[in-house]
Amino acid sequence: SRFEYVKSFEQDDSILPNVWIVIRIDGKKFHKFSKTHDFEKPNDENALNVMNAAATAVLQEFRDVVLAYGQSDEYSFVFRKETTAFKRRSAKLLTYVTSLFSTSYVMHWSKWMNLPLAYAPCFDGRVVLYPSEQNLKDYLSWRQADVHVNNLYNTAFWKLVLEKGLTNQEAEAKLRGTFSADKNELLFQEFGINYNNLPAMYRKGTILLRKRVIVGEKSRQAIVPLHEDLISSHFWKQHTEILGKYVPGTYDAPVPLPRLVELQLNEKQVSEEAEEPQNEARIS
Amino acid sequence: SRFEYVKSFEQDDSILPNVWIVIRIDGKKFHKFSKTHDFEKPNDENALNVMNAAATAVLQEFRDVVLAYGQSDEYSFVFRKETTAFKRRSAKLLTYVTSLFSTSYVMHWSKWMNLPLAYAPCFDGRVVLYPSEQNLKDYLSWRQADVHVNNLYNTAFWKLVLEKGLTNQEAEAKLRGTFSADKNELLFQEFGINYNNLPAMYRKGTILLRKRVIVGEKSRQAIVPLHEDLISSHFWKQHTEILGKYVPGTYDAPVPLPRLVELQLNEKQVSEEAEEPQNEARIS
Amino acid sequence: SRFEYVKSFEQDDSILPNVWIVIRIDGKKFHKFSKTHDFEKPNDENALNVMNAAATAVLQEFRDVVLAYGQSDEYSFVFRKETTAFKRRSAKLLTYVTSLFSTSYVMHWSKWMNLPLAYAPCFDGRVVLYPSEQNLKDYLSWRQADVHVNNLYNTAFWKLVLEKGLTNQEAEAKLRGTFSADKNELLFQEFGINYNNLPAMYRKGTILLRKRVIVGEKSRQAIVPLHEDLISSHFWKQHTEILGKYVPGTYDAPVPLPRLVELQLNEKQVSEEAEEPQNEARIS
Amino acid sequence: SRFEYVKSFEQDDSILPNVWIVIRIDGKKFHKFSKTHDFEKPNDENALNVMNAAATAVLQEFRDVVLAYGQSDEYSFVFRKETTAFKRRSAKLLTYVTSLFSTSYVMHWSKWMNLPLAYAPCFDGRVVLYPSEQNLKDYLSWRQADVHVNNLYNTAFWKLVLEKGLTNQEAEAKLRGTFSADKNELLFQEFGINYNNLPAMYRKGTILLRKRVIVGEKSRQAIVPLHEDLISSHFWKQHTEILGKYVPGTYDAPVPLPRLVELQLNEKQVSEEAEEPQNEARIS
Ligand SMILES: Nc1nc2c(ncn2[C@H]2C[C@H](O)[C@@H](COP(=O)(O)OP(=O)(O)OP(=O)(O)O)O2)c(=O)[nH]1
Ligand SMILES: Nc1nc2c(ncn2[C@H]2C[C@H](O)[C@@H](COP(=O)(O)OP(=O)(O)OP(=O)(O)O)O2)c(=O)[nH]1
Ligand SMILES: Nc1nc2c(ncn2[C@H]2C[C@H](O)[C@@H](COP(=O)(O)OP(=O)(O)OP(=O)(O)O)O2)c(=O)[nH]1
Ligand SMILES: Nc1nc2c(ncn2[C@H]2C[C@H](O)[C@@H](COP(=O)(O)OP(=O)(O)OP(=O)(O)O)O2)c(=O)[nH]1
Ligand SMILES: O=P(O)(O)OP(=O)(O)OP(=O)(O)O
Ligand SMILES: O=P(O)(O)OP(=O)(O)OP(=O)(O)O
Ligand SMILES: O=P(O)(O)OP(=O)(O)OP(=O)(O)O
Ligand SMILES: O=P(O)(O)OP(=O)(O)OP(=O)(O)O
Ligand SMILES: [Mg+2]
Ligand SMILES: [Mg+2]
Ligand SMILES: [Mg+2]
Ligand SMILES: [Mg+2]
Ligand SMILES: [Mg+2]
Ligand SMILES: [Mg+2]
Ligand SMILES: [Mg+2]
Ligand SMILES: [Mg+2]
Ligand SMILES: [Mg+2]
Ligand SMILES: [Mg+2]
Ligand SMILES: [Mg+2]
Ligand SMILES: [Mg+2]
Repeated sequence: SRFEYVKSFEQDDSILPNVWIVIRIDGKKFHKFSKTHDFEKPNDENALNVMNAAATAVLQEFRDVVLAYGQSDEYSFVFRKETTAFKRRSAKLLTYVTSLFSTSYVMHWSKWMNLPLAYAPCFDGRVVLYPSEQNLKDYLSWRQADVHVNNLYNTAFWKLVLEKGLTNQEAEAKLRGTFSADKNELLFQEFGINYNNLPAMYRKGTILLRKRVIVGEKSRQAIVPLHEDLISSHFWKQHTEILGKYVPGTYDAPVPLPRLVELQLNEKQVSEEAEEPQNEARIS
Repeated sequence: SRFEYVKSFEQDDSILPNVWIVIRIDGKKFHKFSKTHDFEKPNDENALNVMNAAATAVLQEFRDVVLAYGQSDEYSFVFRKETTAFKRRSAKLLTYVTSLFSTSYVMHWSKWMNLPLAYAPCFDGRVVLYPSEQNLKDYLSWRQADVHVNNLYNTAFWKLVLEKGLTNQEAEAKLRGTFSADKNELLFQEFGINYNNLPAMYRKGTILLRKRVIVGEKSRQAIVPLHEDLISSHFWKQHTEILGKYVPGTYDAPVPLPRLVELQLNEKQVSEEAEEPQNEARIS
Repeated sequence: SRFEYVKSFEQDDSILPNVWIVIRIDGKKFHKFSKTHDFEKPNDENALNVMNAAATAVLQEFRDVVLAYGQSDEYSFVFRKETTAFKRRSAKLLTYVTSLFSTSYVMHWSKWMNLPLAYAPCFDGRVVLYPSEQNLKDYLSWRQADVHVNNLYNTAFWKLVLEKGLTNQEAEAKLRGTFSADKNELLFQEFGINYNNLPAMYRKGTILLRKRVIVGEKSRQAIVPLHEDLISSHFWKQHTEILGKYVPGTYDAPVPLPRLVELQLNEKQVSEEAEEPQNEARIS
Repeated sequence: SRFEYVKSFEQDDSILPNVWIVIRIDGKKFHKFSKTHDFEKPNDENALNVMNAAATAVLQEFRDVVLAYGQSDEYSFVFRKETTAFKRRSAKLLTYVTSLFSTSYVMHWSKWMNLPLAYAPCFDGRVVLYPSEQNLKDYLSWRQADVHVNNLYNTAFWKLVLEKGLTNQEAEAKLRGTFSADKNELLFQEFGINYNNLPAMYRKGTILLRKRVIVGEKSRQAIVPLHEDLISSHFWKQHTEILGKYVPGTYDAPVPLPRLVELQLNEKQVSEEAEEPQNEARIS
């Protein structure tokens, strides 16, 4: 038709080859959302698991995502450098990831939360490119260092408010200018808490990897959550598949299995269902 | 921290000022999704209304969206030329719209559909810029011409298959090479159907506008669905607020009110709730 | 060869259709360059004409440039909205214009200047897009308002330094905080100069347009310099071809002809020479 | 002024950090330009040296260019990954390099050529980004493989035309479908030419590097031309400064010195002149 010329206004947005593609999503106004839905402070285990479940859905769909990292109301998805998914079209990758994460968040909500959703949550998303392995590791380290700083502060803050009855202002004043060591000390002295013994998910966030899970005599692939320190080089030596050949390693499964993994084992395997796998990764 | 430098890899993506910003979302593999969820063929009124409800949520949130247009598994959102929402950052606008549409689709699903969702649906999104009014009108005309061509074909196709018992191949063969007039004729002769009498929503798609709805003696704003011909200049003369000063006109309400509107009137008004309106439009 | 994959790293940079494309070039460190080559202060008529001659070469080559505007060490080239020159590839347009301007500047230098070039001059270039006529006019007005402000200041400044013997610091101090009216007054009272009688090229910059020049009984096209006020609407009414159909108007030639035009009339007509015109404009 | 808002239409174009920035320029219609100026076929030593001299000027100005590679009417400039020259603004880097190359080409012309320039030459330029060392080496190998293929063909072609009197068509027909070995053989059998003994500049193109040149008892930096095979790893081992710390190595000077280098030694050293070095490289 005479209107078709308008299609030509769409602009090419293919991403430079040979760089790591990171997509980070972040909850819109989750300050308000977490209040409305009575999230536990400073960390709501179930709410974090809704995030983890939604991210797991993204990894199940996009085989070229080799790692995801989540904390608070955000999640980062790392596409391998060589991916040709959606011809590396930036908006396609960005919106599919953001959309699937968003709808999965809503669909998984009631598996973990008691309250119904009061309104539709919403996430922003962005694409960031990293040319080198070091840049990529530093990106993930940046996000993990962020959770450390915030969580130590928030833990101390909410202890002061919820258990010592300080007002928000008083708690803030008390913590202003303190160093990590001070806050560790305060938690230990005043609340008998050894910060390092708090749940690793709160302190380190969640790393999602594709792994072989041994179930009895069989093994099958699943997306598994880790709460390790990815700033140290140890992590990268343990999980060489991330930067290497993408052949999933074996899951060093804790007992009991995380519910996130168990739910997957109870599903029919995704890769069996998929009619037309869109993003073939070299995964054996 | 020493990792913060990675933030500088984020690139500025502000959109050129003074152009219409169109965001079009489209369902991922809705061919399969509509089958899985038993959509009526060729048009499922309720499924289309889930789309309309989700789009309505977007217009309620983003006051600078002056018009939305939907058909099949797609929706286009038009931001006014002058919008400064999110500093015109492309990825922010794109992902918020796509994410909110996506989660609203899931949340509204059960209001219109009997089947539960079998899996999380997913939408892609793209940003397209139009410098002139004519370009914008032509864009919308392009989408509306598309629904006309597709719907006439699909209506004939499914009549042949579902009522005349043709196989898909036979129906396709029969319609190959026919013109609009031929298909109109076929529908009339063989099925006694006057195509122009089919529901306007199927033939024209859905235009969503912000209008003043008169309710008894009061009036309040709502997002209302129209199924008019936007290719003709008449439409633009009737709804001058779209390209003009964005002062909502009065809704010429049908009786009974569309359920989409009624649901809104039963809600507390969104603009009353909103704590911090992010996108102030010049709307009186 | 096995190396050809690197070609795919080149990224598409086509410019959005239906916007005015402005390319502005600016001399690199012309503060130093003008000193080294003893430009007259504040305006060197010949040096400005080297700029004008170089810009004329650009208009002769690129028929889709409908107007150029120059002042000081800068020149702006306006491509008509509909241009498809070089498929609107941004880097191609940008570099061809910048490169041709640059080499033409060097080649024309000795026609106007006595000193040889001490070193190779260099220009930066940028592409700026304007969606509406008003934006485009405002852009050009911005550049012309800039020359007014700077030139009035510089005229007063150099009078004080060169004729009244003030040091640079004294002259600057004297002018600090003054308004246009003050500087006009100062020029008149202390130097008997009516600013408005100074050469229009210094006060208004140079507009280059393609016009029909009447030579005896024949007429031929040439690029002609105007020094008019383009901020007023009068200018746009006089030269409707710029925003309209690009049919060159008739040159209202001063006597004697500017040397810039005379030099062109003495050349064999460019359009006769050109083997393969690359950028066909609708020019009769 | 009320016009200043138009400045905001300029868009940020900073280049992703930590990638190699390659700027390649290429002569516009040099098919015609080389004919007009009677270039020797297939290679004009002097014309190539004008290219080399212009590129040398670029390396003298931009310290962050660690290597340039030229052949035929093109030159590629490689900026080190870490460069912050002009804040990595793409258009600034692109246009400064293209403009300075262009004007230097004109300024150096008469040092090497007898004919005056018939018209202003013009070059296009583009920016291409390479994330890894391997990509960068492959890029340069691609350009060097290109010169090999073209030059072997052209050498055979012009021998057949100029010495055997074949028409262009006959020569083309004779060479159609031949392999490299065939053309080598033809040159040897019919013209007694050992292709590998032809000047390296024609066969390999020209690599420009910054090196320490030993002159008597002193040493000073200069831009030196090499005609080596950069596809082999040997080259990269010999010139580790390119990918390493950018500390210029020592020039293994042929006797007599290339005129390109001699001309530099006769100049006052550029770095002594420069008032404000813009692009500080870590060069000792
Ligand atoms: N109580 C509680 N709050 C949480 C939890 N996880 C995240 N949040 C809240 C704390 C923060 O206010 C908010 C995340 O901070 P952001 O910087 O993303 O701000 P927010 O989402 O409010 O604004 P934004 O739209 O992202 O700019 O989410 C949780 O497990 N428990
Ligand atoms: N039965 C039925 N199908 C519908 C209805 N609305 C949309 N669909 C289906 C018909 C098409 O197969 C599909 C929309 O076509 P698309 O071109 O968007 O293809 P699809 O979404 O399958 O693939 P995509 O991922 O967008 O490339 O959705 C409806 O009301 N009823
Ligand atoms: N004496 C004299 N100087 C002129 C004339 N035209 C331009 N200039 C000088 C005055 C300014 O110092 C300079 C133009 O100002 P710019 O803002 O472009 O600065 P400049 O080129 O030095 O630095 P840049 O590399 O553009 O950032 O050129 C002229 O006709 N006579
Ligand atoms: N005779 C002769 N010709 C040369 C020499 N170096 C380059 N050329 C000519 C041969 C080619 O026709 C031309 C370079 O090829 P290009 O692919 O760049 O084509 P051209 O510049 O004509 O068109 P373009 O504007 O770049 O698309 O320059 C030389 O040393 N001698
Ligand atoms: O949202 P913030 O404040 O955590 O920081 P950001 O995500 O980098 O900011 P923005 O969302 O505006 O890009
Ligand atoms: O998806 P299609 O085939 O309707 O057409 P498109 O949306 O323009 O194609 P793409 O989704 O690949 O941009
Ligand atoms: O160069 P200036 O200072 O006149 O201003 P600008 O040209 O807008 O700045 P830049 O050259 O850095 O884009
Ligand atoms: O100019 P060519 O044909 O050698 O190839 P190219 O330079 O890649 O093409 P273009 O100049 O059109 O980008
Ligand atoms: Mg944010
Ligand atoms: Mg948030
Ligand atoms: Mg957050
Ligand atoms: Mg599509
Ligand atoms: Mg679809
Ligand atoms: Mg569709
Ligand atoms: Mg500047
Ligand atoms: Mg300048
Ligand atoms: Mg300037
Ligand atoms: Mg080319
Ligand atoms: Mg060329
Ligand atoms: Mg070439």
